[in-house]
Amino acid sequence: MQRDTTKSFSYDAKARDGAARVGAITTPHGIVRTPAFMPVGTGATVKAMFPEDVEASGADIILANTYHLMLRPGAERIARLGGLHKFMHWEKPILTDSGGYQVMSLAKLRQIGERGVTFQSHIDGAAVELTPERAVEVQCLLGADIQMVLDECTSYPATRQEAKTSLDLSLRWAERCKAAFAARAEAGQALFGIVQGSVYPDLREESARALIGIRFDGYAIGGLAVGEGQAAMLDMVEATNTVLPKDRPRYLMGVGTPEDLMESIGRGVDMFDCVMPTRSDRHCQAFTWGGRLNLRNARYAEDATPLDPESSCPAAQYERAYLHHLVRSGEALGAMLLTYANVQFYQELMARTREAISQGRFASFADEVRRRYREAPAEEETDA
Amino acid sequence: MQRDTTKSFSYDAKARDGAARVGAITTPHGIVRTPAFMPVGTGATVKAMFPEDVEASGADIILANTYHLMLRPGAERIARLGGLHKFMHWEKPILTDSGGYQVMSLAKLRQIGERGVTFQSHIDGAAVELTPERAVEVQCLLGADIQMVLDECTSYPATRQEAKTSLDLSLRWAERCKAAFAARAEAGQALFGIVQGSVYPDLREESARALIGIRFDGYAIGGLAVGEGQAAMLDMVEATNTVLPKDRPRYLMGVGTPEDLMESIGRGVDMFDCVMPTRSDRHCQAFTWGGRLNLRNARYAEDATPLDPESSCPAAQYERAYLHHLVRSGEALGAMLLTYANVQFYQELMARTREAISQGRFASFADEVRRRYREAPAEEETDA
Repeated sequence: MQRDTTKSFSYDAKARDGAARVGAITTPHGIVRTPAFMPVGTGATVKAMFPEDVEASGADIILANTYHLMLRPGAERIARLGGLHKFMHWEKPILTDSGGYQVMSLAKLRQIGERGVTFQSHIDGAAVELTPERAVEVQCLLGADIQMVLDECTSYPATRQEAKTSLDLSLRWAERCKAAFAARAEAGQALFGIVQGSVYPDLREESARALIGIRFDGYAIGGLAVGEGQAAMLDMVEATNTVLPKDRPRYLMGVGTPEDLMESIGRGVDMFDCVMPTRSDRHCQAFTWGGRLNLRNARYAEDATPLDPESSCPAAQYERAYLHHLVRSGEALGAMLLTYANVQFYQELMARTREAISQGRFASFADEVRRRYREAPAEEETDA
Repeated sequence: MQRDTTKSFSYDAKARDGAARVGAITTPHGIVRTPAFMPVGTGATVKAMFPEDVEASGADIILANTYHLMLRPGAERIARLGGLHKFMHWEKPILTDSGGYQVMSLAKLRQIGERGVTFQSHIDGAAVELTPERAVEVQCLLGADIQMVLDECTSYPATRQEAKTSLDLSLRWAERCKAAFAARAEAGQALFGIVQGSVYPDLREESARALIGIRFDGYAIGGLAVGEGQAAMLDMVEATNTVLPKDRPRYLMGVGTPEDLMESIGRGVDMFDCVMPTRSDRHCQAFTWGGRLNLRNARYAEDATPLDPESSCPAAQYERAYLHHLVRSGEALGAMLLTYANVQFYQELMARTREAISQGRFASFADEVRRRYREAPAEEETDA
């Protein structure tokens, strides 16, 4: 699908079941059905997947990492080559993060100031500056359908004062991003604000209200899944979502397990991203309708059962014994099949979730998912 | 395609142009059009390729390595799981080597005797014995359509006496393989002998004549592409092929570049295998109709040309700039796309070769391939 500049960004709620909701986000590159899970395409590729298989899995949108792409191959280079969609053979919507989180987690010699953050590239040591204005410029060069403001991802744990200082800086940066975006973005592109405030409900509320005052196209909940635990995370989601406007999409960043998704959707979240399904191949973890499996486990050495008989993913039809052999041997095909099956499982999970919400049976559906993942916990590796 | 036990192994020559020939090998899992290039599926997978893409590339047959599979996951295990075709999702013909070559190149603490070879597994150090009888047993357990005799791959360089001693041992092993195969193989399965003799034409002839006396379903030329150079290799191919029967397929093991294939086909070879197209991804080498490219080369950083505009492979439609980015970033998708494009290039090369032979213009076709590969030599890596 080519970019359609006549389409402006919008969110339409279609159905509701408790706080859980089904909706549709319209972007220049097509519709995103929500709740939506965005596979992570860090370096202009969803790791070990052909783009057509990402699409076949049911994904309406992927996430790409501004930090990685601005360092390699460079945002200006991608723009000269026709933009990120064309570059990576993905013509559906793309959301880009602002790069702020990776600067904190990957870059060296970070220095944060009012103006922005300077750091050394983790690839070649080059000195790089990322300001709110540059973050928007890079995301415009990439041609993202949904951009994120540059924020300071508050580290965990943080005192109330640290969280407040960090939140205030993020708000000033958010205003600068909004101004830069207004000056530069193309029709239909969207900019999301990011709620911070660590684990302090009143700071979360303060952050959300201030962002609403600036007016964004959608709102993300950031700075979570960083060690605070699921209960604290869900408290913050709840505190934030009571404040966020109902006519805008809500995006919980960097989350999570199937259980996390059920809990968060039940509290009104619409969008997610997480590296878990695409990184799990390296840990040999498979997400299936029967729960989580560790394919290295010796019990699968002669298990002729398909990986996930309940999935319609072609990769999930491969026998567990073969996948066990592939991951034990370090074969690329093992990562390819597990990633495909995991990405499609997450998409099937979202599709069934949307159906359950539309039919007013979300609570029992979420219970069933929790039960399956409780009964089949992540397994320890054993020798064959 | 399921195994058809009513089909017995046969080779039918269809057309001839000089010494080059077009033919068809019938096996229980289908027809192999010759000249044929067999992608290498060492560990029950053609590296970084989905089985359906190997088939889509045009491959009629793949090679699997007995040595690797007997060590991991084990031949008995694969047999319990229904055989190698089912295990690796490949229902077309499979040729297995005997394991002899890998014992020489990979295993530790090798001891060769009249009975066979004992060695330590390179994976876990386990002591393993490979005899002619065991090599056939393993290949029967895997369910290979075409099996190879266990031979001693004569090292290079070898004196005439060393080559003769080695050749004689290989002939005694070949007789034992034939006896074991006769006792155990299923209808339609085939066993190939392997001509040795280092770079001595009279020894090659002696080896070939002795093997013909034992009577095999096909004949391979082994112990070449081990450092003797292309001219010596082609001399041995010529010396051997003048002796080999015209009603049996001829297989040059472990060869080679597109130029090697043209030279060998022009001397009457029907079958090839080589890791080059499937290992080249690790070296970032692409085989295209325009010659060989090194995708790491900085010249491709903003080259929006498809990898190979002349290929019909889906992977060859990706822009060079994107492939450059992927290989520079060490992304799995780079290996996936390059391997797919290389495997399909080799298949397209064989398809066009068969067409050229059938139309009586093989010489000019081979000249054109040589010209393209001469004009675009393998490129050195440079920095971006």
